Amino acid sequence: MNTIAEHDMEAIAAGSAIYGTGGGGDPYLGKLLAMRTIREHGPVQLVDLDHFDDDDLIVPIAMVGSPSVILEKLPQVEPMLAALAALERHLGKRAKGLMSIEVGGINSTIPFCVASRLGLPLVDGDTMGRAFPELPMTLCTLHGILPWPLCIADEKGNVFTAEVADIHAAEQYVRTITMEMGGAACLALYSMSAAQARKALVPRSISAARDAGQALFDARRQHADPVGAVVRATGGYLLFKGKVSDVSRTVDGRFSFGLASVQGLDDCAGRQAGLRFQNEFLMLESDGAVLCTTPDLIVLLDLESGEPITAEQTRFGLRVAIVAIPCVAAWRTQAALALVGPRKFGYACDYVAVEQRVLER
Amino acid sequence: MNTIAEHDMEAIAAGSAIYGTGGGGDPYLGKLLAMRTIREHGPVQLVDLDHFDDDDLIVPIAMVGSPSVILEKLPQVEPMLAALAALERHLGKRAKGLMSIEVGGINSTIPFCVASRLGLPLVDGDTMGRAFPELPMTLCTLHGILPWPLCIADEKGNVFTAEVADIHAAEQYVRTITMEMGGAACLALYSMSAAQARKALVPRSISAARDAGQALFDARRQHADPVGAVVRATGGYLLFKGKVSDVSRTVDGRFSFGLASVQGLDDCAGRQAGLRFQNEFLMLESDGAVLCTTPDLIVLLDLESGEPITAEQTRFGLRVAIVAIPCVAAWRTQAALALVGPRKFGYACDYVAVEQRVLER
Repeated sequence: MNTIAEHDMEAIAAGSAIYGTGGGGDPYLGKLLAMRTIREHGPVQLVDLDHFDDDDLIVPIAMVGSPSVILEKLPQVEPMLAALAALERHLGKRAKGLMSIEVGGINSTIPFCVASRLGLPLVDGDTMGRAFPELPMTLCTLHGILPWPLCIADEKGNVFTAEVADIHAAEQYVRTITMEMGGAACLALYSMSAAQARKALVPRSISAARDAGQALFDARRQHADPVGAVVRATGGYLLFKGKVSDVSRTVDGRFSFGLASVQGLDDCAGRQAGLRFQNEFLMLESDGAVLCTTPDLIVLLDLESGEPITAEQTRFGLRVAIVAIPCVAAWRTQAALALVGPRKFGYACDYVAVEQRVLER
Repeated sequence: MNTIAEHDMEAIAAGSAIYGTGGGGDPYLGKLLAMRTIREHGPVQLVDLDHFDDDDLIVPIAMVGSPSVILEKLPQVEPMLAALAALERHLGKRAKGLMSIEVGGINSTIPFCVASRLGLPLVDGDTMGRAFPELPMTLCTLHGILPWPLCIADEKGNVFTAEVADIHAAEQYVRTITMEMGGAACLALYSMSAAQARKALVPRSISAARDAGQALFDARRQHADPVGAVVRATGGYLLFKGKVSDVSRTVDGRFSFGLASVQGLDDCAGRQAGLRFQNEFLMLESDGAVLCTTPDLIVLLDLESGEPITAEQTRFGLRVAIVAIPCVAAWRTQAALALVGPRKFGYACDYVAVEQRVLER
């Protein structure tokens, strides 16, 4: 068990931005809200799943919506509490623990707010080991754990409890109601027993995020190489260095789609890279070759400070390092790749593990 | 108490089409479904509110959606049961009685399906004494009875339980979710205690509809004047006779808006009438004078058969009688007129009771 105090949220947020692979919402806003909540309501116990009995109810809490909208419509704790309360009422059972649906961006810090407010432990883990843009893209889906009953709430007091026909309906209704709620909303979903969570969870991903964030801070304080520190802390690969020369982006309410073009610098001088995103960075190409694809993690870092850069923040002139982190093994099965592989996002290439791609170059 | 058997649904449906004032969905489809359900599951007890204890739960069941859509996406009992079950689960209380939200069109026959299926009594009454197109337009609203918690279900297994911030949010979310469900859906809403129902109810409106329908059938069988029989049975006024010369209509998913033009016949020869509707017929004008407005009931009948004609069915060439029925007194207060009066629908005139308008001509 780990006690997470206000100051710990800095490293967790920084590490979540790394594991968020450019998406998951701006972690800065979630961090501020979690820090204020912990200051007012006390620290959070970050626990492993062996803390729970098999039939204890674990509830992931998340925000949904376009990261571009969440930048303007700020996160609040009340709708998170409302979504959780509605789910507990529907199930007739109280949550014994909370969880992050994704270690990435805002959704790894948001559950700390609810955990602090209610004095509930937070599971050290998540259902992706990264961030993904669509609701079914969790390891839960591969283990038959359903997102519904699903509760969705906004800051105006609207709360919906949904039982849906199938996972596509879940995605579609969450999207529709989120748009009606103004483009961002709070969810309680994928509730599961601790026994189920033991199968579907990426364990220790929150502390891994904290460790990566802390490594970044330490390197900066010691005037060492922050990008190198992130690569070492995450077991990643530095794939490209360059300057962002162009970003094309469209926002449709839930997704930010786009392509960032990067001109090589240093040992990449003379090369070009293209970084495709749908909320998260999903594919990196350079000079006709694929360097990395989803579900491996593609992370954009400021070349000097090592600060992770979200797809929203990506803009002309930024000098960046592009780092790849191997995804957890659970994402590399055929069933998993059908759910989150490159073809699922419309990219015409097969998945090859980034370790393999690096070896072959 | 009245036992409603399969054959009684004929008169109830005919009378509901009269009190539906052109809207509320085609009663034919609801009638067929209610008759089949009663045939398979037994008759329905139609009861007064004194049948219930004060704290017994009464739940109105309704369909929502554009009548034009309901013509193609046929009513089914399962989503009605699903909506009721979701509401009962949310409230932690079983319904002791069911109710019609409106005596008009499909929604006065739909609750018979659920009542027969579950063996629950149906209240002889409704919350409007007619049909209205928008969710807040019930006497419940005037008595502080809220439409939420509101459950909405479709035939595919999607069920939403909603707690909303205000009545406008309720209208907006029901509309949005209904559209997502394909343009029509089933609702359990405005649940209330029997004590609350005693204040908000238009009593005996279902048996009034049956009586009007029966009077129509009797007149036809006796080769008497069916239109005159409806006028007498409902305490109404025959305001205009003519031939429909034009109908302009737009459908936006929930509402059918339009204007039917009628050329006078018989003692109305040489005159013109304009009949405006938003699902229901809401205003009748002739030669620059207002003849009748909402909340008084405007009913379109086939001139020969006395068959009520919905706004959907209104088309060039029909020979029609236009009948007005005074609304219940509860709709004639200032607060009620702010909710359902002509200005609420965008018509630039004040409400004058139809009895008064008739006297002044």
